Amino acid sequence: MSNSIDVCLSPKLIDLYDLEGKIVVVVDILRATSVMTTALAHGAKEIIPVEKLEVAKEYLTKEGYLCAAERGGEQIAGFPLDNSPFNYMKDNIKGASIVITTTNGTVAIEKSAVADQILVGSFLNLTSVAEYIKTQNKDVVVHCAGWKGKTNMEDTLYAGALIERLQSTHALGCDTPHMALKYWEAVKNDLQQTVADSAHAKRLNKLNITKDIRFCTQIDEYDVVPKMEGTSLVAVK
Amino acid sequence: MSNSIDVCLSPKLIDLYDLEGKIVVVVDILRATSVMTTALAHGAKEIIPVEKLEVAKEYLTKEGYLCAAERGGEQIAGFPLDNSPFNYMKDNIKGASIVITTTNGTVAIEKSAVADQILVGSFLNLTSVAEYIKTQNKDVVVHCAGWKGKTNMEDTLYAGALIERLQSTHALGCDTPHMALKYWEAVKNDLQQTVADSAHAKRLNKLNITKDIRFCTQIDEYDVVPKMEGTSLVAVK
Repeated sequence: MSNSIDVCLSPKLIDLYDLEGKIVVVVDILRATSVMTTALAHGAKEIIPVEKLEVAKEYLTKEGYLCAAERGGEQIAGFPLDNSPFNYMKDNIKGASIVITTTNGTVAIEKSAVADQILVGSFLNLTSVAEYIKTQNKDVVVHCAGWKGKTNMEDTLYAGALIERLQSTHALGCDTPHMALKYWEAVKNDLQQTVADSAHAKRLNKLNITKDIRFCTQIDEYDVVPKMEGTSLVAVK
Repeated sequence: MSNSIDVCLSPKLIDLYDLEGKIVVVVDILRATSVMTTALAHGAKEIIPVEKLEVAKEYLTKEGYLCAAERGGEQIAGFPLDNSPFNYMKDNIKGASIVITTTNGTVAIEKSAVADQILVGSFLNLTSVAEYIKTQNKDVVVHCAGWKGKTNMEDTLYAGALIERLQSTHALGCDTPHMALKYWEAVKNDLQQTVADSAHAKRLNKLNITKDIRFCTQIDEYDVVPKMEGTSLVAVK
């Protein structure tokens, strides 16, 4: 194996990782990267992830953009779209340019800027991202969005699942991929229930979106590979 | 269960945790907190952990102190003691005041200052720390020292092991304790070999100290409970 895979469990730790020349896979299972995967799978032209709410607001008055903003799980007033994947399967998504800002996921994307390639991963496109990576001959860092800087369950589990699929091509780069892989192996047969018991799922449950959580833990629903090109996320052809 | 246990995987994330009124258990298995446990078990009067090398150097010229300094696994020139537990079992340890600065462990102790109580944990005193905690009726945060800010295997495994022993009294405070517990359960029957394969063990192997690693993964070798009192770590009576 000539390539390696490492895992960063929080955007607050990403500066400790050397991302140059590598593929960074950003993951925010609940729900930013699940939403992005869903939108591109349903024909969105591009997704523009922005870290700051003020920047997202500027797009509200521009023509030709669909805008989504979420903080702490809740939709921000004035934005037509929220952070539920079910709103990214509709007719208006096809061909759309979508601007998204979320609590954790878009922060992680912006903090990965120095990487050679930035991909967006979710359980929904797990295998297609793994298969794409295998064609690239590059080291990988999985960048977990976490929750307001803290490490979380569902993003760590995704890291473990991706590592499992890359075991024939990518050696474990440090301790954290070992932790993520063993954690994934321990709970993967009970993924939906495990994530339903997670801290963030409990936060979201208060907002009555258990359906979202169930959807975001489905594996290989789509075969799209979302990749940053300039300031936009587009589907790899 | 009226109390909870949470886990912070890196000193760089500790500011996200509310430590006030809680017990913080600092862990740096390879090797700072294993060394501290060993020294107190062998009759050291006190251990003074200091974050900065310059502060440790000031003690070199003071009478009545044994001084230890390590960075990146190696002993710092001019300091009589290194970071190997085997040097803390000797006759000169009994009754000694020991000043220690290390790469990760002493940083984690200094960053835990606002806690109600700071304990030092290691596999060597796993059960005695757990039993002490059970008498205190307090929430707990396990503060893993990690490696230069990154999350690591052996400290996370200790967190999982402590959580396992506190399951009847302390509910899981967030996702990270769940991750640590499942990781511990997955590898605990092969602890020595797992930690021997860890990134830090590989770094230490280059320094020819496999014996240290084997010693630091022994469970319940000692029954001492090291606790910060002012600026010193002492054995709880």
